[in-house]
Parts: sequence; structure tokens; C-alpha cells
Amino acid sequence: MTAGASAAAPKAKPATARGEATLRRLLDAAEAEFGERGFHAASVSSITARAKVSQGTFYIYFPSKEAIFGAVVRAIGHALRKHMAQASARHADRLHAQRAGLEAFLEFVQRHPGLYRIVQEAQFVDEAAFREYYERLAEGYARSLARDAAAGALAPGDAEVRAWAIMGLGHFLGLRHCLWRNSLPPPQVLDAAMDFICSGIAPRPAQTDRP
Amino acid sequence: MTAGASAAAPKAKPATARGEATLRRLLDAAEAEFGERGFHAASVSSITARAKVSQGTFYIYFPSKEAIFGAVVRAIGHALRKHMAQASARHADRLHAQRAGLEAFLEFVQRHPGLYRIVQEAQFVDEAAFREYYERLAEGYARSLARDAAAGALAPGDAEVRAWAIMGLGHFLGLRHCLWRNSLPPPQVLDAAMDFICSGIAPRPAQTDRP
Repeated sequence: MTAGASAAAPKAKPATARGEATLRRLLDAAEAEFGERGFHAASVSSITARAKVSQGTFYIYFPSKEAIFGAVVRAIGHALRKHMAQASARHADRLHAQRAGLEAFLEFVQRHPGLYRIVQEAQFVDEAAFREYYERLAEGYARSLARDAAAGALAPGDAEVRAWAIMGLGHFLGLRHCLWRNSLPPPQVLDAAMDFICSGIAPRPAQTDRP
Repeated sequence: MTAGASAAAPKAKPATARGEATLRRLLDAAEAEFGERGFHAASVSSITARAKVSQGTFYIYFPSKEAIFGAVVRAIGHALRKHMAQASARHADRLHAQRAGLEAFLEFVQRHPGLYRIVQEAQFVDEAAFREYYERLAEGYARSLARDAAAGALAPGDAEVRAWAIMGLGHFLGLRHCLWRNSLPPPQVLDAAMDFICSGIAPRPAQTDRP
């Protein structure tokens, strides 16, 4: 989760590369600890033991377990947005880019098995971090959908509503497949999801005219 | 939440109308308690105080706080499915029925302010109840989507993927509007959501041919 360190808003911003590395180790250890045990059972001493960092060092960076929890949520959000943006930027065809973004989200979930537990638990532990996680994801996504619609690559429509709708779809795909079955959705499920995102469920009387 | 009592699977099934009423009072009190305070801070003594029922009576119906929590999740799911099915059955036009179902979901969320907290917290407290909540919702919904597609009222497509996708959309609409802003989504947001559900985001070259 190295990409996320800069979004973590720690108490002290590390001045040295060694400090940066310590902060990253703490965030990675906290992600593992919160993801496996949940916020209530997790402890600062377990996080520092996982990170091989002293408790004194922990408190240079974070005043409390709550603080590093919020930092982990923000770091995951930052890393996820970067990962999805990179995946989708590789595709000139904007519908292919949509699929790539969705696949990138699901791969990220597979690689961060604690993500759902941490982000969903955030609504009870640090609601501001929870809202920020989704709102920042939606903002960037809506901007890209609006740009594509303005360029004629998508049908005109409300980019914000679309962004939240597709995030909801992705959320449940990740829940059902990555979390509950511990595997990426099979290709035919992604095909069906993309068919839904592209064309919806209404009858398509003009379908034969389509390319 | 009276409709849910039968789905609650309590320890003892009430034999009398008075017993039924007591069980319903306990479930309603538990919904309020868990919704306001969360599972960890909630207590059996607060639930019995809210329900005006003795602790001895509580333990006739439920062995523990965990047990009544699971029963509340199941009761909410049962009541929600019933409410949505009734709302959607009123419409012969199946796309109107989709909108009615979505609106019914959002109204239900407004009337059950603890719903999100309880259902989302269930993934940490009683994961089986959490999965069952969504899986039963999705099953019924997919059956209805499959029926409508077979009748030609919807485009052919994977009913299960569609059901989860639209549930995801509804989940985030409820989160953003009902939970975070404490109001139903404005009509133009519902219009945009229905446009997405019906027609997706792909360019619509044949749009002018559509009715």
C-alpha cells in the first residue's frame, strides 16, 4: 500500500526516506491488523509488533489507534483511485476503459483482502473517513464520465449519478465474488455487468441497427 | 417492523397473540437500540427497557444479544422484501415497476433509520445473517427480472447480475441521500438513476428510432 502513504495525513510528516519507510510499514501493518481482526480487537501493540517498530515511534506518527485507522482508510482510497485511473487511462475506447476500471477495482480488492472489512467498519469508527473515501472516488469517476460524455464517447447523462451507480455495482461484485468466494468474478459475469452498464435493461427495439 | 416477526426465528415461537406482540415489541426495541447505539454499545437491559419487557421474558425468546441482532437483520430483510414486492406489483409496466421498487426501497430506508447501521454492522457481528439478507433480496429480485425479460418486457440479459447491480445502485442512493442527507433523492436523481438502469451509458446511435 506504498502509494497511499502521502494521503495518510500522519501527525508528523517524515522528513527522511527512513521515516517514510517506517510510516509505510506502520500503515501496511495496520491494514493487515484491522483487516484481520477488526477495529475493536486490533491493538497498537500488535500493529507495532507487525511493523517491527517501537510503540514510542508509533506515537510520533499517530496519536491513537483511531488516528491510524483513519489514515489506513485514506491510504487505501488513495491507492485505489490511482490504480483504477492508471488502468482506465490505458484504453482509448471509453467503454473498454470502463471495463478496465472495474477489473482494476476487483483486482485491488483481491490484493487487499482487508479492504471491505476496513472501509465498511469505517462507517462506525470514523464516518468522515468513510464518506471521504466514497466521495473522492465518486468525484474523480464522475469527472471522467462527464468528460467522456462531452466527447460523445458516452450517451449524455448525469455523470454523478452514473458514477455512484457503477460504484454500487462494483461494490456488490467485489462483495459477492472477491470477499465471499475469494475469486475474481468469472468473465461471463463481467460481460453481463458491462452489458448492464452499457445498455441497461430496457427492451432494445433498435438493437439490430447498432454496430 | 411488524411484518418481520415471522422471519425472526426466535428460540421460542409465541403460541399466543400476546406472545407475538411481545416478540414484535422486542424486535422493534432491538432495531431502535442497535440502530442508534451499534451492536457493541447496545445492551439487553436497554432493549428490555425500551420494549417494557422483563429480562426473564427476553431470554424466553432469545438466548443472547447476538441472537436478537441476527433476528433483527432477518426481520428487516423480510419486511423490506415484502414492501418492495408490493410496491412493484402495482405496476403493469415493468420499467415503472422497477422505479416503484427503487422508490419503495428508499422510503423503507427513510422509515428505518437504523437499517444501514444494523445491516452493515451485521457483516462483523453475524456474517451469515448479512449474506442471507442480500442473497434473499437478490434471489427474489432476479426471479422477477428473469420473468420480465422472458416476457419481453426487458431486454434479454443475466438477471442475477442485473439484480445485484441494481441493488448496488440502490444501496449507494440510500447511503448518499437517506443516510447522509436524511432525505429521499430528488426526482431528477431518480430520473437519472432510471435512465442509467434502462439504457446504460453507451452512445445511443439508434436513439431517435426509439419510442
